[in-house]
Amino acid sequence: MDYSDIIEKDLNAIFPEDSGDIAVEASRYSLLAGGKRIRPKMMFMTYEMLGADDKIYDDVRFYASTLEMIHTSSLIHDDLPCMDNDDLRRGKPTCHKIYGEGIATLAGDLLLTEAMVRLLQISCLKPEYALAGYKMAELTGVRGMIGGQSIDLSSENLQISLDKLYELQAKKTGALIECAIVTPAYLMKDNDPMILPLLQKLAAHIGLAFQIQDDILDVISDAETLGKSTGKDERDNKSTFVTLLGFDEAVKHLDMEIEGAHKVLDELECKGCKVDEYRKLVDYLKTRGA
Amino acid sequence: MDYSDIIEKDLNAIFPEDSGDIAVEASRYSLLAGGKRIRPKMMFMTYEMLGADDKIYDDVRFYASTLEMIHTSSLIHDDLPCMDNDDLRRGKPTCHKIYGEGIATLAGDLLLTEAMVRLLQISCLKPEYALAGYKMAELTGVRGMIGGQSIDLSSENLQISLDKLYELQAKKTGALIECAIVTPAYLMKDNDPMILPLLQKLAAHIGLAFQIQDDILDVISDAETLGKSTGKDERDNKSTFVTLLGFDEAVKHLDMEIEGAHKVLDELECKGCKVDEYRKLVDYLKTRGA
Repeated sequence: MDYSDIIEKDLNAIFPEDSGDIAVEASRYSLLAGGKRIRPKMMFMTYEMLGADDKIYDDVRFYASTLEMIHTSSLIHDDLPCMDNDDLRRGKPTCHKIYGEGIATLAGDLLLTEAMVRLLQISCLKPEYALAGYKMAELTGVRGMIGGQSIDLSSENLQISLDKLYELQAKKTGALIECAIVTPAYLMKDNDPMILPLLQKLAAHIGLAFQIQDDILDVISDAETLGKSTGKDERDNKSTFVTLLGFDEAVKHLDMEIEGAHKVLDELECKGCKVDEYRKLVDYLKTRGA
Repeated sequence: MDYSDIIEKDLNAIFPEDSGDIAVEASRYSLLAGGKRIRPKMMFMTYEMLGADDKIYDDVRFYASTLEMIHTSSLIHDDLPCMDNDDLRRGKPTCHKIYGEGIATLAGDLLLTEAMVRLLQISCLKPEYALAGYKMAELTGVRGMIGGQSIDLSSENLQISLDKLYELQAKKTGALIECAIVTPAYLMKDNDPMILPLLQKLAAHIGLAFQIQDDILDVISDAETLGKSTGKDERDNKSTFVTLLGFDEAVKHLDMEIEGAHKVLDELECKGCKVDEYRKLVDYLKTRGA
């Protein structure tokens, strides 16, 4: 099943259209500015892979849109002139191009905070979900996405090692992908205890495949197809999988991650998981043009 | 009892000194750059006022430093050139003056997120505290501090009404002061149910008194005493209690808030609370020079 409409509907309902609050308006602009919604989609894919338990369906929706709020918050701040200085995101002007840098900074704070409000709120109502929320917050923080962004900022104009690049990407891109893939397992009570570590391995492969392909697309794609600026990595003298490994070797590493993901999916399949949709996603990561 | 040493010790222990992570280092710089620690101190004062229950002492410490992390996060972002553009805070260079704007933006995100990680973590361990964490996050978000900052940013160079200024300040300054004052009541199980609304009223008076005095000090103090830039409000054409009411009327409003706070303290005293320290704080708000 394709959850695109559900995801857009849920994101649309988070903030009122006529809030009269400029930071809410800016948050809403970025939250609804399109995008592939790959994280919420992966969360629904795990939900289906684990058997699509009706009892947690509404909660999966809740966590899926919460995760997209966190992701959007990081995009708004990453696009600021003091960070990556991007004018274009998902084919549209970035938040600060429309609302100015002050409001955009605050909109990022707002989305991040309101995501955490949601995690704390559901932990009040359903104490058994507190661990899911804690893990999502932890993977957002210094041990996850923000930690990765910190390595990224401090490596500007420096050639970093391949190991450091792996750490950077595992945190910066990988952490929220892990959130997407593991959260439904936290919401279900009666999983095989081996499922969670397998989902974490799957997330690591998919996160890296996603990032390596991103680096490849920065070289071979054009802005119109990609919906964001291209050729930035070389212009900014950034260490990427392409600049560190060379183009052909980067493609090989992408293949290795895709192969690794399929092997984990074999194991999950042996445990009774329905892995077909994940196999399609993994193959799409190889061929995607944007 | 003065909790200053405890507060500094706890804040010092949040991040390691030698993290090797530039955003952690910047967060630590701002977190340990001094300041009056009025929010954590007020949290301890409420703890004592409600009877200083040993069983929650460690948890009060935990929430007190978590609240200071949130407050510091907001200061780092507020000081950015795209917000208030302040070079000096607590008598020291602001975070972005030392680390640059990109790292400072990330450090604010990091402190905010790690504060939420702590709230979610303790909610896992002690589900009965989930409400305290939820309320703290809510008062940080669009219904609290960030909502106030949003009104502030959208009122730049505009004369706003006194009602709007009250709303702005109740959210921007008042919300975290409310967190400080009410949190210990959430951590205790067996309070008189009338205590919580009284603490919220007390917080509202103290928050406003604090802000009106801040606006007065911006006019009459100098940067050396205050540890931050002065005369900014007039320079930035900001609506403050002094610019909207005039100096003498602002002083009268300060007196009214102080009187209001004492009346709430009378009621709390009738309920068996030990209010002496709060009375001293309230009187200090009248006379403080910085």
